[in-house]
Amino acid sequence: MTDKIAITPATHTDPPAKFSHGVRKGNILQVAGQVGFLPHVDGQEPTPAGPTLREQTLQTLENVRSVLEAGGATWDDVMMLRVYLTDTTHFEEMNEIYNAYFEEQNLKEVPSARTTVYVGLPGDLLIEIDALAVLG
Amino acid sequence: MTDKIAITPATHTDPPAKFSHGVRKGNILQVAGQVGFLPHVDGQEPTPAGPTLREQTLQTLENVRSVLEAGGATWDDVMMLRVYLTDTTHFEEMNEIYNAYFEEQNLKEVPSARTTVYVGLPGDLLIEIDALAVLG
Amino acid sequence: MTDKIAITPATHTDPPAKFSHGVRKGNILQVAGQVGFLPHVDGQEPTPAGPTLREQTLQTLENVRSVLEAGGATWDDVMMLRVYLTDTTHFEEMNEIYNAYFEEQNLKEVPSARTTVYVGLPGDLLIEIDALAVLG
Repeated sequence: MTDKIAITPATHTDPPAKFSHGVRKGNILQVAGQVGFLPHVDGQEPTPAGPTLREQTLQTLENVRSVLEAGGATWDDVMMLRVYLTDTTHFEEMNEIYNAYFEEQNLKEVPSARTTVYVGLPGDLLIEIDALAVLG
Repeated sequence: MTDKIAITPATHTDPPAKFSHGVRKGNILQVAGQVGFLPHVDGQEPTPAGPTLREQTLQTLENVRSVLEAGGATWDDVMMLRVYLTDTTHFEEMNEIYNAYFEEQNLKEVPSARTTVYVGLPGDLLIEIDALAVLG
Repeated sequence: MTDKIAITPATHTDPPAKFSHGVRKGNILQVAGQVGFLPHVDGQEPTPAGPTLREQTLQTLENVRSVLEAGGATWDDVMMLRVYLTDTTHFEEMNEIYNAYFEEQNLKEVPSARTTVYVGLPGDLLIEIDALAVLG
């Protein structure tokens, strides 16, 4: 029996329902859908990093990374990123931000697979990302 | 060589195409997208549990559970739930129903990760959910 | 430490960002979202197989298969296919094409699980599919 562990970065707000920001069981780590909320401040509502795609994409990626790291993983362990955008015209700009971000992460392994689709998101959120990682 | 096993709860209608309601291979179990269809009745078309988000969410969760259990798993084995809603204004109500449902399930493990996005669904369907579980 | 390997079929264009068409680590293989682009021709932009759902669905499935095979897997190893359509009225036709395609693949194992949802896709793309496979 392998333990299933909840991953809760200190920077994160409580999830708005009974789910975990991430779970790890054995060598599999699943990151829940992350959005561009700034690190949690006690007594404040979740607040996006800003109105722009750039601000939200970078914060969302950092939020995914926080969960990975709190679960003992890194970007190098990620097999799949699911990117949810709200507007097809954001694809090119998101890719530029994404590429520059990962350039700075100095990956030792090959980049993960990725799917990008265009959906609705609540409020002013422009992007959501989740991740599946396999460690070891 | 590990067998890949199709999971077909007795309550379920035949899938509308060549896919399985669930598959299990070794300790990995994948539940296909479930919607709020009532248990299958011979000679009847698939019928949603009702027009409301509450009825469809509870039935959808029960349909996911049926697949998990027919595959030898429980909610405790679930790593990730993907929730597809059709309307961003349904988020809060879905969370209330979701929380109350899982309160009753008496989970022994931490809750799974989750991603919620807003998509189109056919007919009068308001919610679809799929699940990835890791057993053992 | 298990290697994480990028899978890059010869038929595929370079990904439009820092992601891999597929990655494999141990017995887990993840195929990135594939669309109906024809096999890559040097100096040409990615070009869909055609404007119709039939042309794009068949090409998309072939593109998923190329990644699976370049990673040492087959359709029989696939646990989950995620199908993204742009139009709910395409569901029935997609299923007919999907069924006929898999009829020809002579699967030895049970069919994979599947989720179909309706999203936005860029340009004239009508379908996108990704896959999770577990080998061995």
